Amino acid sequence: MKRIGAVLFDGFEMLDYFGPLEMFAAYPDTFEIVAVAENAAPVRPSGGPQVVPDRVFADGADYDILLVPGGMGTRREIENTVMLDWLRQASAQADLVTSVCTGSVLLAKAGILDGRKATTNKRAYDWVSGQSDQVDWQRSARWVEDGKFFTSSGLSAGIDMGLAVVARVLGDEAATNAAFWTEYIAIRDPDNDPFAAGDS
Amino acid sequence: MKRIGAVLFDGFEMLDYFGPLEMFAAYPDTFEIVAVAENAAPVRPSGGPQVVPDRVFADGADYDILLVPGGMGTRREIENTVMLDWLRQASAQADLVTSVCTGSVLLAKAGILDGRKATTNKRAYDWVSGQSDQVDWQRSARWVEDGKFFTSSGLSAGIDMGLAVVARVLGDEAATNAAFWTEYIAIRDPDNDPFAAGDS
Repeated sequence: MKRIGAVLFDGFEMLDYFGPLEMFAAYPDTFEIVAVAENAAPVRPSGGPQVVPDRVFADGADYDILLVPGGMGTRREIENTVMLDWLRQASAQADLVTSVCTGSVLLAKAGILDGRKATTNKRAYDWVSGQSDQVDWQRSARWVEDGKFFTSSGLSAGIDMGLAVVARVLGDEAATNAAFWTEYIAIRDPDNDPFAAGDS
Repeated sequence: MKRIGAVLFDGFEMLDYFGPLEMFAAYPDTFEIVAVAENAAPVRPSGGPQVVPDRVFADGADYDILLVPGGMGTRREIENTVMLDWLRQASAQADLVTSVCTGSVLLAKAGILDGRKATTNKRAYDWVSGQSDQVDWQRSARWVEDGKFFTSSGLSAGIDMGLAVVARVLGDEAATNAAFWTEYIAIRDPDNDPFAAGDS
């Protein structure tokens, strides 16, 4: 059983979070989804209803897989040392560390992606990449795998990254089946990025 | 301002709900998203964290657009007369009535789709279509528009249906932009159904 720590903060982006979680939820005997936040209070995404954390940071950083969504809230969270410290601790313990969209800015700011290839939302590329020059940022990638780190492009790209995680854990056929069950037309090639950032 | 009543019940499917909501959330000056449930208690989707309703059925049925997700919980809700009565009342008042996946079984069971073309999750097609012979069920359709009713196929198809609603309300370019911002490769043709149900 792989326990997924799916990080919540106010202003997270709904699809960044629930897209990959839906792929993991296709295999409930393999993936246990735990919503984790700094505090126990319900968290409000951009434009949607509040979500209730299952656990808080103080309960531990013991997750096999970490999922960090993006969203407008990342603008605030890059200054939140409680968040960055916890991400550092949880990433060190996790087998796989994943982010969607601007979620990678939190990993980058915490130094977790130093020396790694990574990507982000292509509409926020300049802001995100400007937060750390220690990361080998990729302008064109649906998602990037570098060792145990999976960082995806914006929103919907997180679904494809989620399928790549399913493939890493359970094999390629499991990912194909999850896409079929969810009637999702997947991009299975990480280098196929129809939304690549142009030169700045 | 269009107020969206996004219906919650235990065992709803995450992507059915948050996929189309993400498309609506791209236009916060046009769409107000309200999560509505029978009771005020947090609601648990299949495999994910609890979601907090903003309003309850007793607060009113006054929504411009209704969104009904599917999920395993529909197996229980088709017997819930409080749910079916409220859906009947809210649908009569709404300008647009939408469902994703097996959400259409609730509309069908309530008689709301009588005489209408509609579709559903293609893996649950026989169960859903067996719940009402008054609906003109479509085996092949990414989503179906019949007057004010938009019913989509499973999970991811709800994102495409959501874009069709954006197009209906704000025009085609607005839908194209929402797909671009969310890095989503949309199916814009409702008849393009890669997951069509076979003959039973």
